[in-house]
Amino acid sequence: MAEAHETRRAQLRERFTAAGNGAALITRPANVRYLAGAAPQGAALLVGGDEDVLLCDRMPTDQVGVGRPDEALRIQLLAASDGDAALAAAGLAAGLRADALAVEEHDLTVTRHRALAARAPRLRLTDLGQAVEQQRLTKDEEEIALIRTAGEIADQALGELLESILVGRTERHLALELERRLVDHGADGPAFATSVASGPNAARIGHRPTDRRVEEGDLLSVCLGAAYHGYRAEVGRTFVIGNAPADWQVELYEVVFAAQRAGRQALTPGAEYRDADRAARQVLHAAGYGDALAPRTGHGVGLENDEDPQLAPEAMGKLDACVSVTVEPGVHLPGRGGVRIDDTLVVRPPADGGPELLTITTKELLAL
Amino acid sequence: MAEAHETRRAQLRERFTAAGNGAALITRPANVRYLAGAAPQGAALLVGGDEDVLLCDRMPTDQVGVGRPDEALRIQLLAASDGDAALAAAGLAAGLRADALAVEEHDLTVTRHRALAARAPRLRLTDLGQAVEQQRLTKDEEEIALIRTAGEIADQALGELLESILVGRTERHLALELERRLVDHGADGPAFATSVASGPNAARIGHRPTDRRVEEGDLLSVCLGAAYHGYRAEVGRTFVIGNAPADWQVELYEVVFAAQRAGRQALTPGAEYRDADRAARQVLHAAGYGDALAPRTGHGVGLENDEDPQLAPEAMGKLDACVSVTVEPGVHLPGRGGVRIDDTLVVRPPADGGPELLTITTKELLAL
Repeated sequence: MAEAHETRRAQLRERFTAAGNGAALITRPANVRYLAGAAPQGAALLVGGDEDVLLCDRMPTDQVGVGRPDEALRIQLLAASDGDAALAAAGLAAGLRADALAVEEHDLTVTRHRALAARAPRLRLTDLGQAVEQQRLTKDEEEIALIRTAGEIADQALGELLESILVGRTERHLALELERRLVDHGADGPAFATSVASGPNAARIGHRPTDRRVEEGDLLSVCLGAAYHGYRAEVGRTFVIGNAPADWQVELYEVVFAAQRAGRQALTPGAEYRDADRAARQVLHAAGYGDALAPRTGHGVGLENDEDPQLAPEAMGKLDACVSVTVEPGVHLPGRGGVRIDDTLVVRPPADGGPELLTITTKELLAL
Repeated sequence: MAEAHETRRAQLRERFTAAGNGAALITRPANVRYLAGAAPQGAALLVGGDEDVLLCDRMPTDQVGVGRPDEALRIQLLAASDGDAALAAAGLAAGLRADALAVEEHDLTVTRHRALAARAPRLRLTDLGQAVEQQRLTKDEEEIALIRTAGEIADQALGELLESILVGRTERHLALELERRLVDHGADGPAFATSVASGPNAARIGHRPTDRRVEEGDLLSVCLGAAYHGYRAEVGRTFVIGNAPADWQVELYEVVFAAQRAGRQALTPGAEYRDADRAARQVLHAAGYGDALAPRTGHGVGLENDEDPQLAPEAMGKLDACVSVTVEPGVHLPGRGGVRIDDTLVVRPPADGGPELLTITTKELLAL
């Protein structure tokens, strides 16, 4: 991976140099990690000059989830008098032969930006924009391997839960158990707060697990993600509790299943983001659920759990091969519950077999 | 609490009005929560004009940890076309009879600040600074009651762990078990990532739990925090594993214990932050551990786990009654391990019995 990180920095350098900058200061943690191989808390990366420098207040070690910086990087440990890593990096940049320093204006607060300008008064601060995020869109095969492993871990944790008794347990306890199992199977940790939603809560957007206990007759929707060496994947499924699902539950499940399948099948290189979204969305619309839908049916996953692209009606752009996304349409009926089905996939051309499914937990409607 | 929230907003209004602003836009989540009683993810609060408005993309409910907005607030639900809550609030503010809108420049990114300015081009954006954080420094008795409960929960979780077998279990599993127990006892969740550090890792600053298993003869340092209705408290202890602590372990423990006691005793209204820090720090210095110390020996706790004041050599300011802080000096000896002892306390005047200890787990050196 060390070479990959150098290559990524070289690509970035080409870009910001072409825009007239002598150096770039990277502060967004996922971007630091992408370019440096490691992102200790509070680290900043200065790209440009004779060498690239990772600034942090302690040696990056191979502790869980932090990663290991590549060997071409210089590591500079900070003293308390240096201020934070971004400030110290601006101090370094002030010593370079550069007129302009590109910074991540979407990451820096106004207050920090002002402090950087004060630390390097001779430098013009410009906006790097989302240049690194754009590089991150398409994954290389080593990244995909990590996302694949994250998906396997999430599948394993979910699979084990399904073998246990669910009735009578609270949403919060089920969520905690899933998170413990993620770690058991080698995850750095959960990729995000695990969602467990039962009965009337099922498939509710933004639901946080409550003390409600799972009951016979409930729909139960679960969404969890694993982080593995910094990379994430998520899986979401909906189950019915008890032997005899009600007709409305089966019908709703079949509609969401059909929508999710359509969304998956639309993941092809060159497809517009909004067309991939529409593929899933129109199935739900046609079934009369147009009012109950979330603003998007999927999103990118990688070093962040929620990154570009957005699969949404207004999203602009086209899918490329090797972009990793979720497809997760759902319907929530207030007071009754709902269904959501969520997979992580990699866009692949038809010649390579089409979209690669990274989360393989069954999508049959299981009665538990 | 509803009246408390209104009073807090009235105090803030007085302050920003005196500085020439017609309204203030609050975006930092802990500040929104402090002023509104609830902070659904992504919410923003507009204070000023005829009424105060909480903008969010869904109704704040009484879900775990989110809270409940007070009744004097108008709730405005956002449509997708409104953009994020801060943008929508800027749009509202543009309709007020106001020339200037105070915003939290330490919370807004440069990119978002620019978007706000574009949404309300007639308004001058000024910096509210840390006005809300300053209001939050001194806690009222209802806030202290919540912090007290958070401390009790952390104590309970830690107490239960001590009754179980520790040898042979990994740091990560012990951390997960502590977090499960926090939730068992009613926490919203952990206040921060639980730290469990064994053997050579013990008391290492910034340590994240690893797969190392606890062994006989280890020092084991544990630090955990509970969030309860948004408020946090933390407790940290160090134990020795096995029946016979080594002499160096006992000696190190006694030094850190003495330092922590001195730090606690220094918490009196009117004391300088840096004097409270120095009380603990000088005990460690005198014992020859001056090189191994963290940059601070304590920090504020409340709606955030790490808020002002900082108990550190360069910190400026004086403690007031009803300020809640941690006192957590520690020493880490590379390759050998270390000791850290951490309590949450409320500053009280001597007439009220002096500092109130909120975490009461024993500070004897337990051999487990």
